[in-house]
Amino acid sequence: MSEPLLLWNPTPTRQAILDFMTATTSPGSPDFVPLSERIATFDNDGTLWLEKPLYIQLQHGLRAIGKAAAEMPEVRDRQPFKAVYEKDMTWLGKVVADYAKGDPSGVFTLVMGLAEIFEGITVEAFEADALEFLSNAEDSRFKVPYKQLIYQPMVELVHYLQENSFQVYLTSGGGRDFMRAVCEQIYSIPRSMAIGSSVTFQYGENAQGVAQVLRTKEIEQPIDDGPGKPPHIHRAIGRRPVMAAGNSNGDIHMLKYATGHKGLSLALLVYHDDAAREYAYDAGSEKALQLAPQAGWVVVSMKDDWKTIFA
Amino acid sequence: MSEPLLLWNPTPTRQAILDFMTATTSPGSPDFVPLSERIATFDNDGTLWLEKPLYIQLQHGLRAIGKAAAEMPEVRDRQPFKAVYEKDMTWLGKVVADYAKGDPSGVFTLVMGLAEIFEGITVEAFEADALEFLSNAEDSRFKVPYKQLIYQPMVELVHYLQENSFQVYLTSGGGRDFMRAVCEQIYSIPRSMAIGSSVTFQYGENAQGVAQVLRTKEIEQPIDDGPGKPPHIHRAIGRRPVMAAGNSNGDIHMLKYATGHKGLSLALLVYHDDAAREYAYDAGSEKALQLAPQAGWVVVSMKDDWKTIFA
Repeated sequence: MSEPLLLWNPTPTRQAILDFMTATTSPGSPDFVPLSERIATFDNDGTLWLEKPLYIQLQHGLRAIGKAAAEMPEVRDRQPFKAVYEKDMTWLGKVVADYAKGDPSGVFTLVMGLAEIFEGITVEAFEADALEFLSNAEDSRFKVPYKQLIYQPMVELVHYLQENSFQVYLTSGGGRDFMRAVCEQIYSIPRSMAIGSSVTFQYGENAQGVAQVLRTKEIEQPIDDGPGKPPHIHRAIGRRPVMAAGNSNGDIHMLKYATGHKGLSLALLVYHDDAAREYAYDAGSEKALQLAPQAGWVVVSMKDDWKTIFA
Repeated sequence: MSEPLLLWNPTPTRQAILDFMTATTSPGSPDFVPLSERIATFDNDGTLWLEKPLYIQLQHGLRAIGKAAAEMPEVRDRQPFKAVYEKDMTWLGKVVADYAKGDPSGVFTLVMGLAEIFEGITVEAFEADALEFLSNAEDSRFKVPYKQLIYQPMVELVHYLQENSFQVYLTSGGGRDFMRAVCEQIYSIPRSMAIGSSVTFQYGENAQGVAQVLRTKEIEQPIDDGPGKPPHIHRAIGRRPVMAAGNSNGDIHMLKYATGHKGLSLALLVYHDDAAREYAYDAGSEKALQLAPQAGWVVVSMKDDWKTIFA
């Protein structure tokens, strides 16, 4: 096996990860974790890929909402269609600002608009639309398709865990099926190991009588964020993770769940402190950052711990 | 690899399975299925293990309900506690008879009683109770613990698929977490690959501040039966199965979903026609048996196709 974590600087953070791996996978180690229990869970937005200036999935939503509003005049008198159609940056800016302050109501309005647009289509058609968007639409600052805006040191960590027989799951607060469009390609995480928020589904048959799974516009509860993450993890995996990585207040419960493992565990908290190479912010992560020292979570400084970010 | 499916008689059924495997896994075959798409889904009750005279999980429920009614006089004035406490075989017999006729209301009453008893406990504590029951409580006819009442030819088929790189999932109409107590031990199916019905969960912390996933008494909708099966399969796997096995009307939609795969697919319908070695019945499976010939589903005769059933 080649030298691990080459994209990480030789800091105590990198050492903590290496020490965890040695302790949990070396035969005879008092902290050895059997293969079946080697479960790691990774948040997505802000942990594995860019989440600023807006969640990537919301960019996808804005495009779909814009298209719908252009084609259907009858939706333009209500939000979120009205604001997107009128390019009302005040309304959209308030959504983002409110969310950073802990009020998700505007984001929910966008998410419900998105769910409404894709109501009744097959899961395959939704995924094709997401894949097309992620492969072609470009971020306005970095000028590359969204699917390229992944944190390479974190992807390297995912692979390092996989090489050591960890089963690595994605636990996105955002849409599971949105990430399934690319998670195998960009992270090498199988689609069956993508956990996340979702609409609910209905069984249907097409004109040829072929069975289909169709999206509804109802958001499944709870969403895979905050206290909803451990229940989602239990439902999908059935085991408590030994390792988890997140970046925001929405990951606190998942990190606590992993560190509640009876043996040695590792919790990472990615800290966005690199305005030059990415962004510097702690809005939405204040509580997590405050809890980290006492909880023993390892804070990953993008600025100090990573040699590179996107490439 | 040893000769496959030795517990199956040399019938056209066995040959259909062998032909499917050859066609989907031989390099160069026009029906070759890439590794990532080799997904198989197996119903549990009546397909992999005994479901008569009552679903095994309902036997677990009856025991728990009986214990609760013995300890808590205040629940004895309502169903299902009243009937179980009073050993009211008329009420219990009607539940079973109604269910076979397509009326699940009595079974739902039992399931809700079961969910109520386990409300608030950790997922680990529930699993420990299920494991104890399945390992020790005995079936009244076969006089062995319930976990031994698995159909060996079907388990052999699960292993045969796994040896050929199929990912085999359990898709139980009954409780997912009930099956997770034993699915690795009795089927070699990892717990993360157990799909099924469930209560919903809540995040909690114990007295020591350790994060927990706790059961609620609310049944998650839809349950993993009938038209609910394809949505559950999509949620957990994200791919359409290429092979599926069931035994009842509740499996029709799953079998249709698998045979809707664009390439070659295989759907098996286990037919309970062996009163001497197991049971003979078609109540609850009439529609599936009627659909099978036109749909191209392979009907598995327990009597003719299997050399043995339980051992």
